[in-house]
Amino acid sequence: MTKITSKREEDYSKWYNDLVVKADLAEHSAVKGCMVIKPYGYAIWEKIQADLDKMFKDTGHVNAYFPLFIPKSFFSKEASHVEGFAKECAVVTHYRLKNAPDGSGIIVDETAKLEEELIVRPTSETIIWNTYKGWIQSYRDLPLLINQWANVVRWEMRTRLFLRTTEFLWQEGHTAHATREEAIVETEKMLHVYADFAENWMALPVIKGTKTANERFAGALDTYCIEALMQDGKALQAGTSHFLGQNFAKAFDVKFVNKEGSHEYVWATSWGVSTRLMGALIMAHSDDQGLVLPPKLAPFQVVIVPIYKGEEQLKQISEVAIKIKKALETKGIRVKYDDRDTQRPGWKFAEYEFKGVPIRIAIGGRDLENGTVEVARRDTKEKESLQQTQLETKIEHLLQQIQDNLYQKALAMREDKTSYVDTYTEFKEVLETKGGFIMAHWDGTAETEIKIKEETKATIRCIPLNNKQESGTCIYSGKPSFQRVVFARAY
Amino acid sequence: MTKITSKREEDYSKWYNDLVVKADLAEHSAVKGCMVIKPYGYAIWEKIQADLDKMFKDTGHVNAYFPLFIPKSFFSKEASHVEGFAKECAVVTHYRLKNAPDGSGIIVDETAKLEEELIVRPTSETIIWNTYKGWIQSYRDLPLLINQWANVVRWEMRTRLFLRTTEFLWQEGHTAHATREEAIVETEKMLHVYADFAENWMALPVIKGTKTANERFAGALDTYCIEALMQDGKALQAGTSHFLGQNFAKAFDVKFVNKEGSHEYVWATSWGVSTRLMGALIMAHSDDQGLVLPPKLAPFQVVIVPIYKGEEQLKQISEVAIKIKKALETKGIRVKYDDRDTQRPGWKFAEYEFKGVPIRIAIGGRDLENGTVEVARRDTKEKESLQQTQLETKIEHLLQQIQDNLYQKALAMREDKTSYVDTYTEFKEVLETKGGFIMAHWDGTAETEIKIKEETKATIRCIPLNNKQESGTCIYSGKPSFQRVVFARAY
Repeated sequence: MTKITSKREEDYSKWYNDLVVKADLAEHSAVKGCMVIKPYGYAIWEKIQADLDKMFKDTGHVNAYFPLFIPKSFFSKEASHVEGFAKECAVVTHYRLKNAPDGSGIIVDETAKLEEELIVRPTSETIIWNTYKGWIQSYRDLPLLINQWANVVRWEMRTRLFLRTTEFLWQEGHTAHATREEAIVETEKMLHVYADFAENWMALPVIKGTKTANERFAGALDTYCIEALMQDGKALQAGTSHFLGQNFAKAFDVKFVNKEGSHEYVWATSWGVSTRLMGALIMAHSDDQGLVLPPKLAPFQVVIVPIYKGEEQLKQISEVAIKIKKALETKGIRVKYDDRDTQRPGWKFAEYEFKGVPIRIAIGGRDLENGTVEVARRDTKEKESLQQTQLETKIEHLLQQIQDNLYQKALAMREDKTSYVDTYTEFKEVLETKGGFIMAHWDGTAETEIKIKEETKATIRCIPLNNKQESGTCIYSGKPSFQRVVFARAY
Repeated sequence: MTKITSKREEDYSKWYNDLVVKADLAEHSAVKGCMVIKPYGYAIWEKIQADLDKMFKDTGHVNAYFPLFIPKSFFSKEASHVEGFAKECAVVTHYRLKNAPDGSGIIVDETAKLEEELIVRPTSETIIWNTYKGWIQSYRDLPLLINQWANVVRWEMRTRLFLRTTEFLWQEGHTAHATREEAIVETEKMLHVYADFAENWMALPVIKGTKTANERFAGALDTYCIEALMQDGKALQAGTSHFLGQNFAKAFDVKFVNKEGSHEYVWATSWGVSTRLMGALIMAHSDDQGLVLPPKLAPFQVVIVPIYKGEEQLKQISEVAIKIKKALETKGIRVKYDDRDTQRPGWKFAEYEFKGVPIRIAIGGRDLENGTVEVARRDTKEKESLQQTQLETKIEHLLQQIQDNLYQKALAMREDKTSYVDTYTEFKEVLETKGGFIMAHWDGTAETEIKIKEETKATIRCIPLNNKQESGTCIYSGKPSFQRVVFARAY
């Protein structure tokens, strides 16, 4: 039977890793830093993809696909972008292998050296803006609202499944606009889409805000983000949306003729979420018994397990089970009926608990007589006996209740782990003992931000949108401040 | 207005390329051999993906994701696989760039050289079977029925959009079985899935068959394929399904304990289709007026264009149009209503004809009075006036008619271009004048096959499944033969 021996309270990091591997979500591959996303994990990612994709399309975006490789020289075109992205990356230098003369295997064919090295994309602004140059001539060609689902590579020395891997899957939106205002509206719109998804699909409360200059995306004028809190009190950036100004249009010379007939540089945004969301989802809700999945993203929302003696009884139970399955499916509920005879009911109970299936329905001999089923919730572990009649409506409500409960639980946890501090001593103490989000005054300088980071490993996660303005003094420098910002140690 | 000047009859290759670029399907990128798939092209690919994915899931498969990179040494483990795949490929040798000391840009950091080079996957058998080793212990772990949607890279010197590109998108199924028989059943099952998709979604008739030993996938014991014929008389391999025997299990030491308790090597299959299908789809049905899309794969199946004078009339027409759109959508029909005032109706007519939208509905002032609409088919270019009442049922039938008509037309073309020849002289003459599939006797030797290929550029596309057995003599060697095989020049 699958289970994990590490406890969440004792060793959060080991607990997380065990859970990811044993619940068939992902594992490390033979290639350093790259993961294999296993079928159950991939099924959750497919659900995330499908739901996000629908939200992108509902907001007017279309998908396209751009090359995996980027010529090295493209990175040098945007000054700050090169600093942020063109360093730790996979470099393709050759395009052929050949048999070793000594018969020992295959070796790189040195005659097949590329004139210009190709970089495996760490993000696609450069190749996409180089392409947009051919697509944009007039204001009639704008806005361009394009998204790409792709794999990207950033060479990482220390990796953790889903949270930080050399190769990861993501989506990257890249939009082009005629005006600054329209680009900013787009940047904020996508931030709200991400927050909506985090809160209403992942059941994960997030703070929406902007990054400090220091933490911005390389090449952006402004980076918006959603920040979530994990059960161990560490923050996790769950999505970012960047207002890129005219930086990439200038770097790749993308101009358009406006309605008045004059030439202007195009305004840009980019925004992305990645398989990192899988890490957030797992860490936010799970417990020592395994995964806990919010119903909206669970590959199976309901599993039905028969408890039977003999083939005849299984046949009778199966009839009821299949009828229930069909009734649930008409409500759009995703159901698995597990009638395998290779495993006992107890094993199945533990397995689906471990895999985080939101609702388990068990049907036994007595249920047949009474017209009942036993319904168990994964989140609260409560069980109740319900009549089979109109079960689909009850289950539908229950799924919504579980979804809401997970969100409320995560919100209560976050509120519990959010502290307001006014001195640096208190700041450090809270950080060591309780962790979580720390709301503190900051003097607005990069210098102070960097000092605090060096001394405590805490970073400014964001400056919340519509932040309350109040006068105070910076916890570090004592200089005047007009608002608190969100500090935390982060993944 | 978008149109192409090249004619299909005059320069098929140029016609194809113009069509792909101007219909917003794809274009060449700044990276040699790699394409950009543009939004309209990608929307068709998304539809192909979604429908195939459903077919894979309905036949019991699940998706997963394996690393982009494969250690070089993995390729040497399966003797014939290395010959086929580890030659023309993208090789990652370094993992860091740095600023050039002279300030001229960024250069490869020679200190960040990988101990073992990584190959960007040209296909994933090796990395996947290396992973399966950890997943398979007992017969209870079998079968493993896994598919992956991914990008792959094969370094190509001569590329054509969709048909042959250095990077392309595809799916690759990799299954593991306890017995030879079960693996063969799987290989054939997936061939039938591909044929079903080609014929009933793409409206593209295909011949199902097996490849000769010479044309097999590197590492396979048997390669099954579906072969289609394009309008220029050249063949196109549209999908392959491979029975891999125990080759990869032996190369990566993947054994399982069978029911009797003894250790056996696992049996394998792999199967794939790629963005090449886009090329087949475009080439199979389109004409000098542009794309022709089968309704099942068209991003929009119906476009509604208003023909109006003044805002008031547009308002009245829009009311009718939106009602029709909604009624069609309840039938699951994909509809676009184009009420843009920046373009004239004539421009829109040409645009949607060019983009291959199966049905155009035009609504003008007189239609308002008469309760009618004008319905135009893209395939036959026929127009008719229809009553607005129960239009959704008529359109639903019409879409099915168009789907059927495209298939029948393609089938008639293929039959017209299929020749039975009995001499090598006749063979060469048909090849030069008419092209198409040539059914001819072959002595079964690789030697003859290679000679014919060298002399005529024609290859054996496949040996059809359930092939008619008849005695004859090989067109080349004159030796006895018991069946005809399918020859053609191919993409």
